[in-house]
Amino acid sequence: MGSPGPGLLSLVPFVSVDHMMRIVWDIGPERMIVELAAYIEEDFRRWELFDKTPRIAAHSAEGVIELMPTSDGATYGFKYVNGHPRNAAAGRQTVTAFGVLSHVDSGYPMLISEMTVLTALRTAATSALAARVLAPPGAKTMAIIGNGAQCEFQAIAFKALAGIEAVRLHDIDPKATAKAAANLAGSGLAVVSCRSSEEAILGADIVTTCTADKRFATILTDNMIGAGVHLNAIGGDSPGKTELHRDILLRSEIFVEYAPQTRIEGEIQQLDPSHPVTELWRVLTGLAPGRRDRAQITLFDGVGFAIEDFSALRYIRDQIGRTGEYVNLDLLADPDDPRDLFGMLLRHRPG
Amino acid sequence: MGSPGPGLLSLVPFVSVDHMMRIVWDIGPERMIVELAAYIEEDFRRWELFDKTPRIAAHSAEGVIELMPTSDGATYGFKYVNGHPRNAAAGRQTVTAFGVLSHVDSGYPMLISEMTVLTALRTAATSALAARVLAPPGAKTMAIIGNGAQCEFQAIAFKALAGIEAVRLHDIDPKATAKAAANLAGSGLAVVSCRSSEEAILGADIVTTCTADKRFATILTDNMIGAGVHLNAIGGDSPGKTELHRDILLRSEIFVEYAPQTRIEGEIQQLDPSHPVTELWRVLTGLAPGRRDRAQITLFDGVGFAIEDFSALRYIRDQIGRTGEYVNLDLLADPDDPRDLFGMLLRHRPG
Repeated sequence: MGSPGPGLLSLVPFVSVDHMMRIVWDIGPERMIVELAAYIEEDFRRWELFDKTPRIAAHSAEGVIELMPTSDGATYGFKYVNGHPRNAAAGRQTVTAFGVLSHVDSGYPMLISEMTVLTALRTAATSALAARVLAPPGAKTMAIIGNGAQCEFQAIAFKALAGIEAVRLHDIDPKATAKAAANLAGSGLAVVSCRSSEEAILGADIVTTCTADKRFATILTDNMIGAGVHLNAIGGDSPGKTELHRDILLRSEIFVEYAPQTRIEGEIQQLDPSHPVTELWRVLTGLAPGRRDRAQITLFDGVGFAIEDFSALRYIRDQIGRTGEYVNLDLLADPDDPRDLFGMLLRHRPG
Repeated sequence: MGSPGPGLLSLVPFVSVDHMMRIVWDIGPERMIVELAAYIEEDFRRWELFDKTPRIAAHSAEGVIELMPTSDGATYGFKYVNGHPRNAAAGRQTVTAFGVLSHVDSGYPMLISEMTVLTALRTAATSALAARVLAPPGAKTMAIIGNGAQCEFQAIAFKALAGIEAVRLHDIDPKATAKAAANLAGSGLAVVSCRSSEEAILGADIVTTCTADKRFATILTDNMIGAGVHLNAIGGDSPGKTELHRDILLRSEIFVEYAPQTRIEGEIQQLDPSHPVTELWRVLTGLAPGRRDRAQITLFDGVGFAIEDFSALRYIRDQIGRTGEYVNLDLLADPDDPRDLFGMLLRHRPG
């Protein structure tokens, strides 16, 4: 005789990496990024409702493990994410992640999901959402400096959401550029591989930086950026890791997700803590202007914020019923009488 | 053609509630509590090595959701735990939990486990570990006031670790007492069901309080506690929730897990923040005395600390290979080239 099976209340849907990839192809990567952006925009528009806790980080010599919780009062979510720059040498991801969504009223989890793939999609969706209100009108060409794991996601997000038709790629490692160019071959984007950052930014209306170097780097110097460009700086996302020369920041109108976090992690860690920045949610709700004129340099200093993960988990929760791409995990004890946990154990005694 | 399966690096062992119950019966509940206590003691003895972060709590009108992270420098762990007193009315557990253990050097998770059952076991193990150095010598009888989900675990832990032969049960709900007495019938303990707290504590060397009421309650008043008793106060574990009259605290030598947390959550929230308390790890390492004489009243003001969960997860990690009680989850993306996340997605395109 087997043990009684777990009750319905104790089951939590789990979306594996394989499930997530099936969901992406069921919906289509571009459409999924567009829909993710809509969920993120919806949550950014109700920004003031959210609990905004800074991430809780455990630092070590090798990297960092972070927990990023947030809540809108009805639903609670958190993401576990690591950042270990030396992982790649051992064939591991620099960044991996998973997340959980729960009911605030019962504390019971309603979803556990892989978030390595999902974070790549939501990061690109957030960048493109920012570009919709910040990029110069009629932008068609984007340079992408840094052709690692995030590169192609940025490319297809900007095609789907910001009207980009051509991408100009550069990486200090030509193999990374070749990899990205090959992956984007069927994307419908015109792809140009470039031997230098200077060459990549020629004619670009938008410049995305997403390098992985964990140090104060200068991917772009001041003389490289002319009037009217939108900068989408994604790689500078932790203390001690920046990509842009400080002088570019001083010439730009700067937009961020959540200022208290970005001042620690973003490009603006190079600036005085009182330097004016605009939170993106204020632009999306109409409380602040986005791009004001064609000549302005705009900068989205993206570091990734918990609400974006919350939106992404919410989106996945809304997809799993239709797609069936999940399995139920027996994660929560479900005794017949909640006070009788020991009795549940006794009733599962073998023999 | 199916998709390529997930690589080995991307798989994380998952211990469900069913697996956990099989592990408990494979080892035996008493022996498992003894072994858990040994892991907890080992970690308490290297206390100063651990990152000790206070829990990160998201409070709502209905309850609280908490993340409890810690690390010993080589291994990182966190527990997700909720506390929702009104859950029981809907057939749900008041407290459910799950936990994750990870490699600090790569950030990769090595274990995901249910922790509702495991927390009940580790809480009882910690109480009994404290009693070993605090209870009066030769203690044979324990009163347990509050006969909910934690009651039987406390009883068998004190039998296995502290030489208890008889338990005297009382709960304001006689059905809870009847449930606990029935569950303990085959335990080898002499069980006496009592109609009042006063009756339950008659002749008891140890008094455990583990009621669930979320308010300032007075389960024990000052005149009820005589010389030489050890108090094991488990139920007072969050702000606004206590069980003992303040006057008892003033007559007791007080021992806690981690003072900064217990001053907020434990019985000692009723006392001045400068009131002297001793952290249990200091007794276990010989830096501070435990019970000094037979007449002393000792109090272990237990609230549950992240290191105990870390020890418990570490213990389960060491059991799953031998017992085989787990399944692998495809939680982490594992592309052939870590920079080629998008390529992994493309190679999983159906058709």
